[in-house]
Amino acid sequence: MTITITAFERSPDGGRGLARDTRVRWALEEAGQPYEVRLVSFQAMKEPAHLALHPFGQIPTYEEGALALFETGAIVFHIATHHAGLLPEDANARARAVTWIFAALNTVEPPILELGTGKMLEGKKPWTKERLPLLEDRIRDRLKQLSARLVDAEWLDGGFSAGDLMMVSVLLRLKSSGLLDEYANLAAYVARGEARPAYQRAFAAQLAINKPRAG
Amino acid sequence: MTITITAFERSPDGGRGLARDTRVRWALEEAGQPYEVRLVSFQAMKEPAHLALHPFGQIPTYEEGALALFETGAIVFHIATHHAGLLPEDANARARAVTWIFAALNTVEPPILELGTGKMLEGKKPWTKERLPLLEDRIRDRLKQLSARLVDAEWLDGGFSAGDLMMVSVLLRLKSSGLLDEYANLAAYVARGEARPAYQRAFAAQLAINKPRAG
Repeated sequence: MTITITAFERSPDGGRGLARDTRVRWALEEAGQPYEVRLVSFQAMKEPAHLALHPFGQIPTYEEGALALFETGAIVFHIATHHAGLLPEDANARARAVTWIFAALNTVEPPILELGTGKMLEGKKPWTKERLPLLEDRIRDRLKQLSARLVDAEWLDGGFSAGDLMMVSVLLRLKSSGLLDEYANLAAYVARGEARPAYQRAFAAQLAINKPRAG
Repeated sequence: MTITITAFERSPDGGRGLARDTRVRWALEEAGQPYEVRLVSFQAMKEPAHLALHPFGQIPTYEEGALALFETGAIVFHIATHHAGLLPEDANARARAVTWIFAALNTVEPPILELGTGKMLEGKKPWTKERLPLLEDRIRDRLKQLSARLVDAEWLDGGFSAGDLMMVSVLLRLKSSGLLDEYANLAAYVARGEARPAYQRAFAAQLAINKPRAG
């Protein structure tokens, strides 16, 4: 059955690979699964046809035969469950890998997204200059803990898993902030993720859609 | 094998059931699984023994024989996978229920947590009075979309699932804000969740630890 995902017709990040379809593309590339992409405009994302697929009017979505999913975490988990390469066989190791998917999305990413919101939605507010350092310190709290857990391991728990895919994807949001470079082992961890051929293919595929066009 | 979870020695919410151990207790009650609770102080949560279990120094954790997990979403998912009552049998319906777990934690809860952070960590900042209405509007955006998806259904997708358990738990955070009451179908949905005997047992168990003691 054909797998179809949705992505921004034009990503707000201009092709830096931070839109969440890149995470799903990466998982599909790790799993060796071909997929098709349906591009949606910001306007179309808020219309009934897309809201039927994604009640919160976002991307990505995932369609495969009669199955329709939304939420990047759920989609990556679904791919990881149905194809080899993203979750260990051992039941306990698998549960721990799933834990890292949730940890990336629910514990590490929220303060990173708050920094993004603080800059984008509140960038012109009078309080932003004083508030952004508070947000950066909340991110540092998490990075410090993650760095202390990773130490010098290659991946978070044994071999590369969907948990690493998600954590690297979350940390990639920090590249332009300089915060990641304060934790050398995390910066190296992210670089290892980016170096994976599957990530490279996923990144190139989203860039082909989003790269700045010649004026 | 004995299941042991961790919870706050003294919950910051004074027994309103908003600490995340309540979500795990609820899942275990729905699954009919007995469990033990180890209470941890704020100080102990940041010490090596607890950090070995939970790298971000939070509660709850979950131990069962050789398995140790953290992250509420991962724990609830693990319980739902290994016991009947929280996930449908049909594979596609199961994937959709998992989607709602992620949607609750990653799409609906973040703006709700931002409102909490805005009040608690930034409550005395000069910008807070002007900023809180912005945060409330971001929550309303999500509630409106969720309300439009739920319409008059009893649960989010067929029978009660771990997805509903998580969504109700997330929405319960809004009870004191009045925001939930702006969406009658969501308020009724949350009330249905609270009325479940398993939730009642979970709530009572955490209240027994956290209820205000006579001075």
